[in-house]
Amino acid sequence: MSKPYYAVIFTSLLSENTDGYSALAETMETLAKQQPGFLGIESAREKLGITVSYWESIDAIKNWKINVDHLAAQKSGKEQWYSWYKVRICKVEREYKFKELFE
Amino acid sequence: MSKPYYAVIFTSLLSENTDGYSALAETMETLAKQQPGFLGIESAREKLGITVSYWESIDAIKNWKINVDHLAAQKSGKEQWYSWYKVRICKVEREYKFKELFE
Repeated sequence: MSKPYYAVIFTSLLSENTDGYSALAETMETLAKQQPGFLGIESAREKLGITVSYWESIDAIKNWKINVDHLAAQKSGKEQWYSWYKVRICKVEREYKFKELFE
Repeated sequence: MSKPYYAVIFTSLLSENTDGYSALAETMETLAKQQPGFLGIESAREKLGITVSYWESIDAIKNWKINVDHLAAQKSGKEQWYSWYKVRICKVEREYKFKELFE
């Protein structure tokens, strides 16, 4: 990744009703990867879920935010899957790496 | 949290030898919470571990980075626990919330 770039930190708690969630989450990840300006994605969930996606620019993030399929998924997320979530848009200012396993 | 503030995204993979890791990770979280400028922390691990800590300023992050106990933990992390990690220092530029469960 060449700097500067942006990170979207998406933190969430799932509700009781997660029907359809996993399948759509996978589809969204596949679609995000096809967006212009997409750089990478990292996810983990225990009780709390954290997904961080990386983007070349704020515009790339905005374009993904208003992607039609993604808007539909956001609607399902709000209405059904998430009991809580928070989205933070961040500028990555510096980084340190230990081993270059993924890059 | 009042803006602007900073996020440290710490992404890691554990090695085979995680003796002592959980206990020291908990201790580090307790110590981080006592640092000036600490705002919050969120963690999840499946295979990949993601910990995001939030700070009032870059100086608060630097002070935590050079905390004596934390330096010792970083050494153990490099030598024993982590097969890979990456640290990204980010400025949180905007945020959206769904439900204010934690704040």
